[in-house]
Amino acid sequence: VRVRTNQPQVELQNTDKQVSSAASYTDSSDDETSPRDKQQKNSKGNGDFCIKNIKQADFGRREIEIAEQEMPALMALRKRAQGEKPLAGAKVVGCTHITAQTAVLMETLSALGAQCRWAACNIYSTQNEVAAALAEGGFSVFAWKGESEDDFWWCIDRCVNVEGWQPNMILDDGGDLTHWIYKKYPNMFKKIKGIVEESVTGVHRLYQLSKAGKLCVPAMNVNDSVTKQKFDNLYCCRESILDGLKRTTDVMFGGKQVVVCGYGEVGKGCCAALKAMGSIVYVTEIDPICALQACMDGFRLVKLNEVIRQVDIVITCTGNKNVVVRENLDRMKNGCIVCNMGHSNTEIDVASLRTPELTWERVRSQVDHVIWPDGKRIVLLAEGRLLNLSCSTVPTFVLSITATTQALALIELYNAPEGRYKQDVYLLPKKMDEYVASLHLPTFDAHLTELTDEQAKYLGLNKNGPFKPNYYR
Amino acid sequence: VRVRTNQPQVELQNTDKQVSSAASYTDSSDDETSPRDKQQKNSKGNGDFCIKNIKQADFGRREIEIAEQEMPALMALRKRAQGEKPLAGAKVVGCTHITAQTAVLMETLSALGAQCRWAACNIYSTQNEVAAALAEGGFSVFAWKGESEDDFWWCIDRCVNVEGWQPNMILDDGGDLTHWIYKKYPNMFKKIKGIVEESVTGVHRLYQLSKAGKLCVPAMNVNDSVTKQKFDNLYCCRESILDGLKRTTDVMFGGKQVVVCGYGEVGKGCCAALKAMGSIVYVTEIDPICALQACMDGFRLVKLNEVIRQVDIVITCTGNKNVVVRENLDRMKNGCIVCNMGHSNTEIDVASLRTPELTWERVRSQVDHVIWPDGKRIVLLAEGRLLNLSCSTVPTFVLSITATTQALALIELYNAPEGRYKQDVYLLPKKMDEYVASLHLPTFDAHLTELTDEQAKYLGLNKNGPFKPNYYR
Amino acid sequence: VRVRTNQPQVELQNTDKQVSSAASYTDSSDDETSPRDKQQKNSKGNGDFCIKNIKQADFGRREIEIAEQEMPALMALRKRAQGEKPLAGAKVVGCTHITAQTAVLMETLSALGAQCRWAACNIYSTQNEVAAALAEGGFSVFAWKGESEDDFWWCIDRCVNVEGWQPNMILDDGGDLTHWIYKKYPNMFKKIKGIVEESVTGVHRLYQLSKAGKLCVPAMNVNDSVTKQKFDNLYCCRESILDGLKRTTDVMFGGKQVVVCGYGEVGKGCCAALKAMGSIVYVTEIDPICALQACMDGFRLVKLNEVIRQVDIVITCTGNKNVVVRENLDRMKNGCIVCNMGHSNTEIDVASLRTPELTWERVRSQVDHVIWPDGKRIVLLAEGRLLNLSCSTVPTFVLSITATTQALALIELYNAPEGRYKQDVYLLPKKMDEYVASLHLPTFDAHLTELTDEQAKYLGLNKNGPFKPNYYR
Amino acid sequence: VRVRTNQPQVELQNTDKQVSSAASYTDSSDDETSPRDKQQKNSKGNGDFCIKNIKQADFGRREIEIAEQEMPALMALRKRAQGEKPLAGAKVVGCTHITAQTAVLMETLSALGAQCRWAACNIYSTQNEVAAALAEGGFSVFAWKGESEDDFWWCIDRCVNVEGWQPNMILDDGGDLTHWIYKKYPNMFKKIKGIVEESVTGVHRLYQLSKAGKLCVPAMNVNDSVTKQKFDNLYCCRESILDGLKRTTDVMFGGKQVVVCGYGEVGKGCCAALKAMGSIVYVTEIDPICALQACMDGFRLVKLNEVIRQVDIVITCTGNKNVVVRENLDRMKNGCIVCNMGHSNTEIDVASLRTPELTWERVRSQVDHVIWPDGKRIVLLAEGRLLNLSCSTVPTFVLSITATTQALALIELYNAPEGRYKQDVYLLPKKMDEYVASLHLPTFDAHLTELTDEQAKYLGLNKNGPFKPNYYR
Repeated sequence: VRVRTNQPQVELQNTDKQVSSAASYTDSSDDETSPRDKQQKNSKGNGDFCIKNIKQADFGRREIEIAEQEMPALMALRKRAQGEKPLAGAKVVGCTHITAQTAVLMETLSALGAQCRWAACNIYSTQNEVAAALAEGGFSVFAWKGESEDDFWWCIDRCVNVEGWQPNMILDDGGDLTHWIYKKYPNMFKKIKGIVEESVTGVHRLYQLSKAGKLCVPAMNVNDSVTKQKFDNLYCCRESILDGLKRTTDVMFGGKQVVVCGYGEVGKGCCAALKAMGSIVYVTEIDPICALQACMDGFRLVKLNEVIRQVDIVITCTGNKNVVVRENLDRMKNGCIVCNMGHSNTEIDVASLRTPELTWERVRSQVDHVIWPDGKRIVLLAEGRLLNLSCSTVPTFVLSITATTQALALIELYNAPEGRYKQDVYLLPKKMDEYVASLHLPTFDAHLTELTDEQAKYLGLNKNGPFKPNYYR
Repeated sequence: VRVRTNQPQVELQNTDKQVSSAASYTDSSDDETSPRDKQQKNSKGNGDFCIKNIKQADFGRREIEIAEQEMPALMALRKRAQGEKPLAGAKVVGCTHITAQTAVLMETLSALGAQCRWAACNIYSTQNEVAAALAEGGFSVFAWKGESEDDFWWCIDRCVNVEGWQPNMILDDGGDLTHWIYKKYPNMFKKIKGIVEESVTGVHRLYQLSKAGKLCVPAMNVNDSVTKQKFDNLYCCRESILDGLKRTTDVMFGGKQVVVCGYGEVGKGCCAALKAMGSIVYVTEIDPICALQACMDGFRLVKLNEVIRQVDIVITCTGNKNVVVRENLDRMKNGCIVCNMGHSNTEIDVASLRTPELTWERVRSQVDHVIWPDGKRIVLLAEGRLLNLSCSTVPTFVLSITATTQALALIELYNAPEGRYKQDVYLLPKKMDEYVASLHLPTFDAHLTELTDEQAKYLGLNKNGPFKPNYYR
Repeated sequence: VRVRTNQPQVELQNTDKQVSSAASYTDSSDDETSPRDKQQKNSKGNGDFCIKNIKQADFGRREIEIAEQEMPALMALRKRAQGEKPLAGAKVVGCTHITAQTAVLMETLSALGAQCRWAACNIYSTQNEVAAALAEGGFSVFAWKGESEDDFWWCIDRCVNVEGWQPNMILDDGGDLTHWIYKKYPNMFKKIKGIVEESVTGVHRLYQLSKAGKLCVPAMNVNDSVTKQKFDNLYCCRESILDGLKRTTDVMFGGKQVVVCGYGEVGKGCCAALKAMGSIVYVTEIDPICALQACMDGFRLVKLNEVIRQVDIVITCTGNKNVVVRENLDRMKNGCIVCNMGHSNTEIDVASLRTPELTWERVRSQVDHVIWPDGKRIVLLAEGRLLNLSCSTVPTFVLSITATTQALALIELYNAPEGRYKQDVYLLPKKMDEYVASLHLPTFDAHLTELTDEQAKYLGLNKNGPFKPNYYR
Repeated sequence: VRVRTNQPQVELQNTDKQVSSAASYTDSSDDETSPRDKQQKNSKGNGDFCIKNIKQADFGRREIEIAEQEMPALMALRKRAQGEKPLAGAKVVGCTHITAQTAVLMETLSALGAQCRWAACNIYSTQNEVAAALAEGGFSVFAWKGESEDDFWWCIDRCVNVEGWQPNMILDDGGDLTHWIYKKYPNMFKKIKGIVEESVTGVHRLYQLSKAGKLCVPAMNVNDSVTKQKFDNLYCCRESILDGLKRTTDVMFGGKQVVVCGYGEVGKGCCAALKAMGSIVYVTEIDPICALQACMDGFRLVKLNEVIRQVDIVITCTGNKNVVVRENLDRMKNGCIVCNMGHSNTEIDVASLRTPELTWERVRSQVDHVIWPDGKRIVLLAEGRLLNLSCSTVPTFVLSITATTQALALIELYNAPEGRYKQDVYLLPKKMDEYVASLHLPTFDAHLTELTDEQAKYLGLNKNGPFKPNYYR
């Protein structure tokens, strides 16, 4: 699973997201020539890109059009931008997963006035057809599925190291692009107005830079905005836990005994879904407040060892390490399914299962049977990496929320008056969070109530929000 | 989609179940030689079978072993049969889907003393590896994935038309085998003790035979046993509606507006699941009693036209025809998903969509976009055939209940004293239904309470059941 | 609790329903004169009744008017009867609880053309104000709250033993009226066209009469109609288990461990409600089919003794006797709440708690603490009688379904052509069950779909129903 | 409803909580002598108290004992305090509702070493029997049910204005006691180490004092601690909405259409409960983030006017004013139930209903029918005051959480080293919040997992907490 060496932090990031199921629609053609070695031109003769195969552009265009239908907020932003172009003059360099949803974001940024150059943040996750459609549409994209380590950095470099074009905004997912510019082109930051970062890892790296006094532009932490958190964690996991388990194991949920380790937002989503499907769910927790919530929500709060012999499924959602260790795995019953919904691949001590007396059998993609000498098997999903990234898809609607937040963060940083943001890491202002939410309400044909003047006065609020304090979740 | 001609009834059956997703693990090797033209022998030199490729036996054996773990009731029957062999002397000819679960059933029948010959009831659904494992294990199996019309009947004929072996029991799924024997070898029925039939279609044909006075042996209707009904319909659909929608469309359920047509067991399962996942569900019904149940369960009861413009998903579960017609389809909003969970492919009037002004676009396996002149698309799943058979898997545990019922029905008919069953169609006795259920309780570590003598007397019941009248559901 | 002697069967009936909470709005004035000793006249000078206090008529009228709003089906029947009077000529003698809902039924029967005379089926349950309103409206009512044993039979006798008026229809609840006529005025049955009986007990007595060949008129078993069963059991208990527990104990449901004995309709309702409120629910069952349903619905199936030490609440719903015995009670933890939702007061062996070493403390109405020598208390509700009848109210809407079924049963029996019904006990025809349901749909603004001619033909159904076989539940 | 004049702020507080249902077990004896005019002594000859009737002490003692069983955390604090007495030397003056739960708190404070003097914070809510038990136990209690305005302040004064005893801690609920000391005995603050305040109103007054620079001691805001908020709002309202509606109206929830105004914690609890009981729930919101949550949770988001004609129940949970106004009330359908679960009595514009053309009819305690000229009635509960305080009880377990937080806040403020707290309003430290939660886990037999050293290090946490940042909710 290791994809690069000597770069543990970067690797972690990539390990997290290694197999995006969306990529499964991508071709696996046997053309073995490296894209870097090909002459590439789109139908207008433009050749400033590097992708797998420009002929796939039509297929990719349809995927983009389908995605547009589930990304109403970005489409609304495009419409509103027909008069003013809030990103006119912006030169955005981006490094994210290259998917249909990203394409909708990029084409929105373009409609808002920005120029874009883009690389992939993951060597496996690029949808080649989408990259082709973007290249055909005039975007300078440098990405393909199955890049090598060297390809990866080469693509990033091609985005920034270009004659006569210098970026003034960064949109990053994982921090690799930011890192590369820091390392290779530090002077570039003089013209850069800000960084927008989406991932846990990338945000962590920004906070470290800030702490070390090395952050030289304002950065917007998109990862921790309310809407993203609630959607990615609670609501999205509520659906993807079921999807991920079904696609890999076809297990019937009714009557199954399940233990969920951790009752934060992710654990709450998993527990709610499984309970609703007729599973009997146990919860483990370290925090007494979350533990009390689990009790009130109708789950038996246990230590893992109390139920490990009887459960059919074990799910980790803690963000912690070694939550399920070899001793637990030894005691599980035959056929027990083990998987991870938390934020990295350390929650289950998978390394402890790589010992000579245990046999590993790959039974399906992402599904291993680990077999004990006495014949007992456990069913390990995605080798302990994130189940929902590895084995289910993320609904476009959820990605829409993130993409809209990214777009608004770019607009905010690009247009903010001098001095509003210092060289620090910021959350999107509450009011813009609320704006992102409001742009997604029409999808549900949802009708918001407006405060009367009298009510606004009574509550001490502005009629247009923000409606809650910043810390409200 | 038509697979054979001039046999509408048979075709319906096959259309229903055309694509079993389990078959997706099957190879699609390019060996184009027909199995009928090959010399076949297993490792012991036995050649009384006809399958795709005997070399796949090992892979198939593992699939069977995995299935055994979720079919505890059959394994329990094997164990109990170690002393007495309730099917000693039975010669069973079978015609069912050939899957790992069927293999567990066949090997159980064998352990109970029966000899078996088997064909496939569907030209697409055979898992070639499993057929190989069965052939390697000594079973006379005649089936492969992708049979022609002619192959289909040839395989059935090879099961019954054999020197020195004459069946005395029939296990059928769809009625084709029964039909064939009636047509070609009517005299065979003199030695046949009974028919066990699983499918709606096959049961329907048996009742017609019975009504016409042509049924010449007792038949057991396995399809309508309580456990099968409740599991296949309510509990299984509760899970497969989510699974089928996710695998085909990756749709997010939260906040979606859904109309479910029909509030029988299938509709109840679909509604419960979608409500639990945060969808807003509307129901249509013709029966006021089911309608009142829908109300009490918290669903708005509407006519289809009242909500057709606003819903995101339309699901039919009625068993009726033309429930969703072109007029409804014309009024749906862009992106609306349309699918069928009812019992045939007539609920949605798909034929009405095959008109020149509409464009069909196959976007994924089992997913078509039908596009109106104004650009509106609806997303039609499985061309209106059964979603859960076409696009999701059926949990082995559910199949276990059916298989166990089939095994018990064979035992009952084979051992019933003269006169207990006439030339008619029967339901499995309540007590055996209860026995099937009790064999599946250990899976859930469920502990049944026993009546005391005093309580049994008070209730007027036998301590060992049956506990409810036959009509209790 | 014993209210009468030497009539165990009758007593059971009254014990079941002893305290109707609806009666709590009734006055408890200190007027100690027996109604039988008073001269009574309503404002029009009519004196053919015997009630507590005619002055309460206005208050009672308002209660009736409130009830009318929740009994839309009876009001609809009245409206439809403006032309034809399907009960013209009917002389109905009734013996039921005298409540506002009964008054709506009686006034409906009157609007349909019937004459009525009425007594109470329970010595405690009469709402005096309602009786007053009925008397003021011209009904011959003989009932008050707190009748003696002797009063009870006197009232019944006054309904039937009257110069110049002989009943031709009986509406009974519990069988006491029927029993009285059988015993005292057997000749009266010559003119009686039928009996409509609502209660389990009364129906049981009718079946015994029928079995013994002594039933001399047709009888309609209203108790077992689908709508009544589903509403009274599943839906009504789903709400009343919460209500009954809250009103008596103020217990918080979240996080409580509860064991529910029995998973029939009542048990299903209780389990669903408590699970939804965040309780952790265990189930005991004797029937493997219901047991499997409990598993699939997400409840651990246990034997009582496995969880008896740990649960906070024990609820019986079995219809059986001695489900919770002294040995179980001895092992419960301090503060455990014990109650019964089943069909009689035998499920909990309350008698076993009346031993010298245990102290009983009445802490509230219907709530006893039973205290062990070591200080442990259990909280026993309603002395083991039915919790929902004793400690919560039954929604008028549910009573509306029963009352409508009673009215339709009277119409059916009264108008049935000679020979349609023999001297036997009948269920209401499926089609009329469906009609009752359809009359209640407007309450929910529910819109039923109608079959097209083509669909009706396809399904082999009449467009107006019945839509399901009689045994369908 | 106005109980006192010229003190609008105080009145608001009392209006909120006017009728505590717990008080319903209190006698309403006809002894008309004012307690202030009686000579009072307990059985030990102590007379430093003023209550209704010392003879009720035994009954009150039993109520306290029952409450103790549901307040495990306070009992645990008592046990731990057997060695050290963290409140030794503390002189606590309190002003809260005088109920069994408060008595458990007071006796705990006493066990921890404190001396207490206590008055009621509400003129109606005192449970006389509990006050008697406290007086008999030696507490100086000054409170009875049905105090006059003048009595109210006299009681408070008797707590503080006493020879030879001066308080050093204040425990207040509503701020009246604090206000009285500020006004009459400002010098007393020199010895006072801190104020613990529970109510919204009282906390609001403290923040105003702080803002005005007049707060002269540290104050602890118990109201906003996580555990209290989550329990009082989400979990408690989930149960009390059902309880309050049932006790007042006996309404059946199944199939009812309900609109809930506001989707904060309270609204979330109400919606979840009603959905689970089979109601169809609509939500109104002003905040797009909460609105999006409502959508994802499966509720149609509407403006009130879109559904006002069709709903059966209207519930306000906004904290806003005039959410339901006369125009809305005019459009409601006959029989519509209207109630308030928000934080004051302004959400429904009840005043607008007091016009000549509308008739008010009090049909039960806390239930009014308001009747339009055309006969339409709406059912108004608790005159628009808080439904759960007026018409249902609060589970002891929830009060236990608040009481434990109060006790810990007193200990913290009393023992805090000089300088830890300034003259400001504080939240309880996160770690103590977690401690309160952990003390309540044993009630659920819940077993917390402990971090290993390695895990604590990985997460950067102390093994004993706090486990989350302060703002985590």
